[in-house]
Amino acid sequence: MTRWPLPPPMARALEEAQIAALEGEVPIGAVVVKDGRVVATGRNAPRQTCDPTAHAEIVAIRAAAAALGNDRLDGCELWVTLEPCAMCAGAIVHARIARLYYGAADPKGGAVEHGARVFEQPQCLHRPEVYAGIGGAEGGNLLRAFFRERR
Amino acid sequence: MTRWPLPPPMARALEEAQIAALEGEVPIGAVVVKDGRVVATGRNAPRQTCDPTAHAEIVAIRAAAAALGNDRLDGCELWVTLEPCAMCAGAIVHARIARLYYGAADPKGGAVEHGARVFEQPQCLHRPEVYAGIGGAEGGNLLRAFFRERR
Repeated sequence: MTRWPLPPPMARALEEAQIAALEGEVPIGAVVVKDGRVVATGRNAPRQTCDPTAHAEIVAIRAAAAALGNDRLDGCELWVTLEPCAMCAGAIVHARIARLYYGAADPKGGAVEHGARVFEQPQCLHRPEVYAGIGGAEGGNLLRAFFRERR
Repeated sequence: MTRWPLPPPMARALEEAQIAALEGEVPIGAVVVKDGRVVATGRNAPRQTCDPTAHAEIVAIRAAAAALGNDRLDGCELWVTLEPCAMCAGAIVHARIARLYYGAADPKGGAVEHGARVFEQPQCLHRPEVYAGIGGAEGGNLLRAFFRERR
């Protein structure tokens, strides 16, 4: 299939996901971008770090906030290879992420277009613009390959 | 009004909330208990730490997981002064917290009995037992006093 190249932040997020797989973690990667510049990256790492909150998005958001010296990431984009879960969607709200780009949809654990639909709650304090599906095939393939090997 | 004394973990969580207020943070505190012993405490600290994920529950869960050397807090209780938000409810799921005790309900930001109702989603992988209202008056009073002073 002929296709367009992936936007660089999603290509970078997929690289992070691949590193996570090599580390024995579920392969999910994330990148925070501000004004076209990568501010921080993250990859899934709960096992290695003994931290149940160490999803790719949380790792990237925490690193970006530390780098920018502010707990609000106004004007920042988050690129992630999989639909965020409720924890990560909530963190996206608290961080005031302006735009969320995610790859594969996650009917089991996702909380953007599935389940808790965090951004659709009437009380939701901040709603990012959401762009789904970019790099979704690549992100989904990494996850399927990872779980196939472990079965 | 005559009343029973608060269970010690909730009294401790309220102390953490009071410290948060002194630090200029929204006063919310949390404690992780295992086998009757306090494993970790946390208080709300996003401003001071430049970390939008630094809610009391996340701070306590991360500290407990580090202390126990495991990203799963099997058999642990989380005591927190306010109904957890979507981010924190998601973290409670990932950490496999066995029992959640929270004080005040939070119609605006809560995601247990309000909004995203994270544990009620059919896909929710793990549901803690939930006990609401213990210390709710005290937890709510701390928050109201904090916001009254700032107005």
